[in-house]
Formats: sequence, structure tokens, C-alpha cells
Amino acid sequence: MQQPTFDDVLDAAARIAPHAHVTPVLRSRSIDALAGCSLHFKAEHLQRVGAFKFRGACNAVWALEEAQAVQGVVTHSSGNHGAALALAALSRGIPCHVVAPSNAVPAKLAAIAGYGAALHRCEPTLAAREAACATMQQHTGATLVHPYEDPRVIAGQGTAVLELLAASGSLDVVVVPVGGGGLAAGTALALAGRAPGTRLVLAEPTGADDAAHSLAAGRRITDIVPSTICDGLRAAIGRPNFEILKAAGVEVVTVDDQAVLDAMRLVWQRMKQLIEPSAAVTLAAVLAAPDRFAGQRVGVILSGGNADLAALVRMDAE
Amino acid sequence: MQQPTFDDVLDAAARIAPHAHVTPVLRSRSIDALAGCSLHFKAEHLQRVGAFKFRGACNAVWALEEAQAVQGVVTHSSGNHGAALALAALSRGIPCHVVAPSNAVPAKLAAIAGYGAALHRCEPTLAAREAACATMQQHTGATLVHPYEDPRVIAGQGTAVLELLAASGSLDVVVVPVGGGGLAAGTALALAGRAPGTRLVLAEPTGADDAAHSLAAGRRITDIVPSTICDGLRAAIGRPNFEILKAAGVEVVTVDDQAVLDAMRLVWQRMKQLIEPSAAVTLAAVLAAPDRFAGQRVGVILSGGNADLAALVRMDAE
Repeated sequence: MQQPTFDDVLDAAARIAPHAHVTPVLRSRSIDALAGCSLHFKAEHLQRVGAFKFRGACNAVWALEEAQAVQGVVTHSSGNHGAALALAALSRGIPCHVVAPSNAVPAKLAAIAGYGAALHRCEPTLAAREAACATMQQHTGATLVHPYEDPRVIAGQGTAVLELLAASGSLDVVVVPVGGGGLAAGTALALAGRAPGTRLVLAEPTGADDAAHSLAAGRRITDIVPSTICDGLRAAIGRPNFEILKAAGVEVVTVDDQAVLDAMRLVWQRMKQLIEPSAAVTLAAVLAAPDRFAGQRVGVILSGGNADLAALVRMDAE
Repeated sequence: MQQPTFDDVLDAAARIAPHAHVTPVLRSRSIDALAGCSLHFKAEHLQRVGAFKFRGACNAVWALEEAQAVQGVVTHSSGNHGAALALAALSRGIPCHVVAPSNAVPAKLAAIAGYGAALHRCEPTLAAREAACATMQQHTGATLVHPYEDPRVIAGQGTAVLELLAASGSLDVVVVPVGGGGLAAGTALALAGRAPGTRLVLAEPTGADDAAHSLAAGRRITDIVPSTICDGLRAAIGRPNFEILKAAGVEVVTVDDQAVLDAMRLVWQRMKQLIEPSAAVTLAAVLAAPDRFAGQRVGVILSGGNADLAALVRMDAE
């Protein structure tokens, strides 16, 4: 597939406008004081389905030609992308198939089913998931919407930072989490087109730091076995995602899970916002590398809020 | 002291404007669908110090004549009012004394001290607290700011619903929690002046239902021993508060602690907002008495967000 461009991000913004929320930008003077910089939090945990993922899924679904769209969409994510694609398909009135491994979290599967998607269980391996997706495509004609490699998904994710810039004005730097790299690559495209002087920092858990290693080596390194509480950031960086980020010359800051928990608790306490670990990694990175942000205007994308609160509170107490 | 009036609420709004946040009004289509009505949540958990209490405390502090103000303020609340008065005093640069029982929650005392107030410990009885306050007043000349009976506090709390009406337009009904009755009485004054056709419903925990009993009996009943997780609503209704609410002809809906926990979890999950039990009692009341709200435009004041999350998650799991 072709690499997405800044124009694709602009098209995506127009395409998803009737369906997605323009989420607010939140401030906290007490966290600003702790961080030593001016933080502008883009509240994507308040996006529909509770995550920025709705942007990319919505763009992919509404970009389809009508004849193709009626045959539906399919994906193999049991997380936020699965729920996002299900709701996006529902908004267009087309079928959605989600292939989920047998060990997926029941609450997340219930959310996906609640948006009207058909669930298809498979063995918990990548090979089994891809095979099940291919079978669904053959049988139904449904279009595969990959969680982060799909160019329409990348372009859709880039719309969040456009809204952030419109609300906050110019920023010295923007910090986003990186997993598969859909949000990271989309943000890189958007910044290159709209705010080329703004730096992009990727925040990554040390337990899944393939993006840091890949960008340092200049080639994709995908054999890292992820071990982190950031369940949205365990995927290895995608092919087009890596190419876009390499070309953009981004920075990476890695932080361990304890720093993520500390940042998450800070946002809970000071901002009263329930964010998930994969979102807190951004603030954790700002607090871990203060010299990179001192005195600057910093945009932070709070990527989602679908947390298992009971599990996190238990973990935090240990 | 004289009873506060609608004009006092308007004066309070002008007085606190430079210091207090205009908090947002939040919506949730999924909770609307569950409740069968259109809910407009006034997000006072995003107010400074994390609770509406800052409005009343700020009004009381800034209403003082300069000669009186420099002698400081004193109160005997170890909860949100203590923190609110401390921050309000800090904003005017005057001393604040907070008398706190020896069994108060350390985290809350730390917050109060963090705003620069002087803490004075006493025995955990009402008599000891009042005696300690009286001593402080004599020694320092500080002005007592009662958490809910003070007319400046009542007028200040009434400003929240003015902002809610300005943002949401006309409402059929407004729901607020009731403990000592500062917010309830202030809201009654504000509605009488600004939106006399809007009903006022008080939400009260069954384990501290003195307002329900008092309004039913037509006289203050203060011998109920409170037992509820809503730590901000354990106080018995105040004297001026009762008179204002009786005259306003308000309704009361009582709900048990399990209903409060369920409503709180719903706001966490669907709105990603961390609210405390004393705030969730409002939504619990709407969900418990659907016939009173069906199809209506309902304002709900989410009063605060200073929760001991770990304790609540444990309780919720039991």
C-alpha cells in the first residue's frame, strides 16, 4: 500500500468530523510545576470508545467505496482498535468481524460485541490470527483494517495533533506513546505539514522498546518479547510506521513500568482523569527527562482511558 | 447572621471569578441512554482543590474587610472545606488556621498544610473542635468560616448552578448532594432567582438521611448517627440551610451505599472522570428514581473528586 501523506491527514480530519469528538485540551498547574514546563494534554481518553483509535478506524471505514464497504471490515485486535473498528462500522451500517484470541480479556470482548461486531475466536498466536482474518476476507469479501500499518489508520490518528495545535497554538514539542506506531507516524505526518518546527518525542516502555532500538539501528528490530503493563504498546513497530518515523528524525524516551504507574496516579490525583498505562507513558517520559522539556510548551497525547482499575490499584500498592 | 439572598449569589460570582475555575459541563450518551434522560454534569471535581467547596471558601475570604482579613480565618474541617479555605486564604495572602481531629486522614491534612495553613490538632469530638476554634479566634482575631452555615459560604456554593445554566440552557431539574446543606441551599437561592421553574432534587445517602427526615417533619432532626461511604455528606443539615430548603420546596431522593458505588464506577468507566462517593450520590439518585427524570433535561453537580481510590476499589470488589 502507498505511504500516507499530510494531505491524507487533512482528508481524514474532514472525513471523521461528523463521527469523532473534538476532545478537549486539559491543563494542570500543579503538574506543570512538577514537570518544569507547560503541558497541554490532548484528552483522547474522552474520545469515542475511550481512545484515539476511533480516529483511524473511522477514517478507514468511511474511506471505503460503497461497493466495498457493504462487504464489511475485519481485524484481529481484541483491544481498543477492535472496539473502535466495531463502532466505526456501526456508524456506517456495515458488518464488522473481529478475530480475537481465546485468551482475550472478557470485558474487552464484551465491549466489541456491544458495538455489534461479530467475534471469531482463534488460538492465541499471530499465525492463527492472520489465518483467521484471511479466511474471513475470503468468505465475506470484508476489507482488512490493520491496527497500525493501514495508511488510512495512520492518517486518521494524525488528526489528533491537528486539533491539539488548533487549540493550544504553537508547541515546542509533542509527546506520544509508541507501540505499533500508528499514532506516532500519523503525528509525524501532521507535524511535518502543519508545524515543521515542532519536535516529536516518542514515549516507550523499557519492556517493549523495539522502536528505540529500531530507530537507533536504522532498521526494524522486531524480536523483542514485550513485558510491560502498557497493554496497548506491546506490538512491534510496523513497516510503514518505521519508515515514516525514521524519515521524520524523532526522539525516543524509554521509561519503566513503575514510572508509568507513578505518572498515571499523578493524573488520577491532580487532574481527576482516568487514563490507562499506555497513555501515562507520555507524562512519565516528560518527568524522566526534564532537561529535554524545561520551560517549553509541550503537547502530550493522552491516548486512552480503558483501564482495569482494580488490577492497576492492586499493582500500584505492591 | 442574616440569611443569604440571590443577590449575594450574584455578588459571590463576581467576587470569586478571578480565582475559581469555570468548570466544564460534561455529557455522556451512554449514561443518558441508561438513565432515560438528558444529563448535564457540572464538573466541580475539576474545580480548584478538587471540589465545589472552593467557591464558598473563596467568597467568604474575599468578602472580608481588609482590617478583618489580615487577622486571618479559621475553621474546623479536615476535609474539602479545610483545603478550600486554606487555598482561598493563600490567594489573599492572609493566615488560615484549621482545627483537625487527631483521627483525621493524613493525606487530607497534608493537602491542607500544602496550601500553607496552620494545623491545630484536637480530640475527635465536636465540642473539642468548637472549643479549639473559639480559642483560635480569641488569640488571633481570625474570622470563623463555618463549612456550610456561613451565609457567604452558602452564597458562594450557589455560583456553580449559575454557570451550569449559562452553559446548558434551561433545565427541568437540578440534582445536588446534601450533607450540611451549603451547596443545596446555595443552589436553591440561585434557582429561585435565575430559573424559578427548575425543580431542585437533593440526593442523600440512606445512612445519613437527616435532610429527608427533617424536610418531611418540617423541623431539623439532627440525632441521626451517620454511616455512609459518602464522607462529605455525614454532617447534619445546618440551621440556615434547613430554613432555605424548607422554603424552596425541594424533593429528596435517598440511595444506599451500593447504589453510590455503582454510580461512581459508571462515571469512572463511561466518562473517565474520577469522582468521589459524595459526588456519585447524585447520579445514583437519578438512576434509582427514573420516573422523576424520564425524558427531562437534568443538571447534576458532580461535587468533588478527592477519593481514596485504593479503598474504594477494594470496597467495590467486596
